Amino acid sequence: MVWERLRDQRLRDKIVQAEEAASWIEDGMTLGLSGFTRAGDAKVVPVALAEQAKQGRRRLTVNVYTGASLGSGVDTVLAEAGIVGKRLPFQVDSVMRQKINEGELLFVDQHLSHTAELIRAGVMDPIDYAIVEAVAVTEDGMIIPSTSVGNSNVFVEHAKHVIIELNVAQPLALEGIHDIYTPGRQGGRAPIPLTSAEQRIGKKGIPVDPEKVKGIVITEQWDSPSTIAEPDEETAVMAGHLIEFLRHEVKKGRLPRNLMPLQSGIGSVANAVFNGFLESEFSGLTVYSEVLQDAVFELIDAGKVTFASGCSITLTAEKMKQVAANFHAYRDKLVLRPQEISNHPEIIRRLGLISINTALEFDIYGNVNSTNVLGTRMMNGIGGSGDFARNARLGIFVTKSVAKGGRISSIVPFVSHVDHTEHDVDIVVTEQGLADLRGLAPRERARLIIENCAHPLYRDQLRDYFREALARGGHTPHVLEKAFSWHTRFAREGTMLDMTTVSSR
Amino acid sequence: MVWERLRDQRLRDKIVQAEEAASWIEDGMTLGLSGFTRAGDAKVVPVALAEQAKQGRRRLTVNVYTGASLGSGVDTVLAEAGIVGKRLPFQVDSVMRQKINEGELLFVDQHLSHTAELIRAGVMDPIDYAIVEAVAVTEDGMIIPSTSVGNSNVFVEHAKHVIIELNVAQPLALEGIHDIYTPGRQGGRAPIPLTSAEQRIGKKGIPVDPEKVKGIVITEQWDSPSTIAEPDEETAVMAGHLIEFLRHEVKKGRLPRNLMPLQSGIGSVANAVFNGFLESEFSGLTVYSEVLQDAVFELIDAGKVTFASGCSITLTAEKMKQVAANFHAYRDKLVLRPQEISNHPEIIRRLGLISINTALEFDIYGNVNSTNVLGTRMMNGIGGSGDFARNARLGIFVTKSVAKGGRISSIVPFVSHVDHTEHDVDIVVTEQGLADLRGLAPRERARLIIENCAHPLYRDQLRDYFREALARGGHTPHVLEKAFSWHTRFAREGTMLDMTTVSSR
Repeated sequence: MVWERLRDQRLRDKIVQAEEAASWIEDGMTLGLSGFTRAGDAKVVPVALAEQAKQGRRRLTVNVYTGASLGSGVDTVLAEAGIVGKRLPFQVDSVMRQKINEGELLFVDQHLSHTAELIRAGVMDPIDYAIVEAVAVTEDGMIIPSTSVGNSNVFVEHAKHVIIELNVAQPLALEGIHDIYTPGRQGGRAPIPLTSAEQRIGKKGIPVDPEKVKGIVITEQWDSPSTIAEPDEETAVMAGHLIEFLRHEVKKGRLPRNLMPLQSGIGSVANAVFNGFLESEFSGLTVYSEVLQDAVFELIDAGKVTFASGCSITLTAEKMKQVAANFHAYRDKLVLRPQEISNHPEIIRRLGLISINTALEFDIYGNVNSTNVLGTRMMNGIGGSGDFARNARLGIFVTKSVAKGGRISSIVPFVSHVDHTEHDVDIVVTEQGLADLRGLAPRERARLIIENCAHPLYRDQLRDYFREALARGGHTPHVLEKAFSWHTRFAREGTMLDMTTVSSR
Repeated sequence: MVWERLRDQRLRDKIVQAEEAASWIEDGMTLGLSGFTRAGDAKVVPVALAEQAKQGRRRLTVNVYTGASLGSGVDTVLAEAGIVGKRLPFQVDSVMRQKINEGELLFVDQHLSHTAELIRAGVMDPIDYAIVEAVAVTEDGMIIPSTSVGNSNVFVEHAKHVIIELNVAQPLALEGIHDIYTPGRQGGRAPIPLTSAEQRIGKKGIPVDPEKVKGIVITEQWDSPSTIAEPDEETAVMAGHLIEFLRHEVKKGRLPRNLMPLQSGIGSVANAVFNGFLESEFSGLTVYSEVLQDAVFELIDAGKVTFASGCSITLTAEKMKQVAANFHAYRDKLVLRPQEISNHPEIIRRLGLISINTALEFDIYGNVNSTNVLGTRMMNGIGGSGDFARNARLGIFVTKSVAKGGRISSIVPFVSHVDHTEHDVDIVVTEQGLADLRGLAPRERARLIIENCAHPLYRDQLRDYFREALARGGHTPHVLEKAFSWHTRFAREGTMLDMTTVSSR
């Protein structure tokens, strides 16, 4: 069983227990972990390290770089053990989030395509240990990743040492779906030759110098399942708005009938929108995305999607079983790439993606906050949304128009944190409607956003703000002293609703 | 003289006066004008149109799309005539600016690399007339642009009609320095083959169907000279900080000794920083930029810069004379490209540019405002700064730490408009010092920015804000109700200085 997967003879005597591998890690080191949206993460060595620290046997602080979010409780135990100095480029863990917001742990919120460049340029701390999950190691020492690629290729290339977590629970059938391409150094780099979602341009695994492989830990553990909520009535309505818009674009001759390659961010809203394609007339679709969620597999099953390129596969528990049991049906319709390629501006712009990501809030001029609640408290991170929105043919942001039972409006006068500027946002969608901002001046955008996207509860309040701002003039009219008044009212009164205005109407 | 330049026999009977060409333009039309940073602009037909409207002979509104800013007073007369409905993607004209800020004219502030994609995708209003300056039209009907390329290739390709302003005052020696490459439609597009600043990948001119050429207007008028201020003591100090930093990066092995291709935005500060290279030890430099200003030619003269790629040449009056008289010395060291290529994310990232642009203000977390004074009043536009900063190897923003004699701090708690997010800004520089933000969490960035870049007048005030914000916690600590208090104080009291705090110290 193990030798079927660990085929490089030179590495057979490197099998160790997780505890031993963890003991090699020293204070001040920087770790590069596999893992992207809970998929294909290094599952045991980081946990063993945290355990050693929690039991008081070790005192250390390490930097933790990953692809994106980890599953398997890894970020939880790392945060609880208090051993993380700096964490990047993305996380979704509630315990870690709290430490980040308390300032106990430094989080660097990076575009997911940028981390690889910074490592390559020697800007980030050098990687001491790359710890990457694999389904196999080939005869010639190539690491075959599992359900994600993330930054593993770059971590392995630049790390001083490599620890492989060979996970025998991950289907060996995954071998062959990866396409590992790593751009050269800037200045001596050729164009990335990818010109379609289905094209293969790289190797089936990550080449590694066997001398750098310090240990191999055998594991047997499934990925943490995705926890996305089921589509509800509102997300279905949003999907409807978006599909109606795409239909209109096709009719106008602005999009081909099979659209352009689709990208959808993580989360239930974006996934629900993808689900909307199931009921639509669109077919012959392709996906060029980061994470491939349940809906992508349903679209493949339905014959709607002919090919899907991603960086990871993250499924609910039920879907995971079904896909694993039937993987041969998907094998030739899938490819997993490094996040530098799945999220590369060069490719996103060349292919002309339709990109759908979730906003926390957006403002009347189309600026989007994806990360910081009330401008200060980190939720997850920008992830790939910036890579996609800036360079996509259609940069679309979706969110429900209100949250917390109407006490928060997702459309505000001025977003409390800007992750995507007015220059980068093409379309915004709520369950109320859609606003196509392309080619519009700020004053035009504000009217459209207020009338089409805001919840009726807040529409008058937004109109009042905009009217007052217009009276002051400017290209982007604002009443700066009231720009954040909705956020401060929520902090003070628990609602963004201005009750004085409401009662006077 | 004219036939030497108008070599296509088929077009000889199309010569008309500017007034006649202008008379073809109808109400509601969209014009695509050549012109980028005052260089190579269509100089007479738009002015003739404005005159016809000002004299009351015509009533019309047109949309005006350009490369970037126009010279020759064109935007002034267009704005004064009140005939512009929508203007994009950039302008620098004081009369037009006022109309924009009064809401009389709709301005769409776009990334300079984006306009071409939007036109190609059929999203913007179709171009009725492309009006482009040329130094010549070849035997086979190819338009040879003059001192800029801008969006002219895309305008000509997509316009219903083309009007050529054949400018006999522009040196014919410019023929041969252009490299016109236009990407195909998204989805069927090959990689852009450019892998170095000096490489040629396209044609020497813009191909045009002679049937589409409706008229040729002969003009004889130089470009408006650049109006950049001379380097002063503070800009020289800023250049010194930046060069010291680059020296350090070379020493650390993070940059090669001849650095990476350099980009500098328009304006005196960025130009002064380029000037700093004159005195430095760096040589074998290349430039891959939008506008080539005086300093680039001085660097070529000094043997520091071996090759410069741009989209336009914009010089002061004195430099223009000198360069025109001696153009053979520069011919093989220059290339002018369409702005879609000079500013393309694919190329910027591949080449690994060092990108230097001017900020209006930046905040303690590294967000940059490049466009809207006090969050509302448009200055010029984002231009190419977003194309470059997001994708460059080093995205650098420069500004003096105070303006208006100290009454405005360029470093504020929260920028009043975000054009470049904390995720996109690598380095900020003022005359006070430099902050390298790469790989830093927000709390780390704030300390560095306050201590290194803020003016001593405002340092305590920033420390107070940050301390109060820290007490509230969060990943990006803020006191939202005071976030814009510096801007509102300036609007109210004419200074950002909090006099109550100052006097209590």
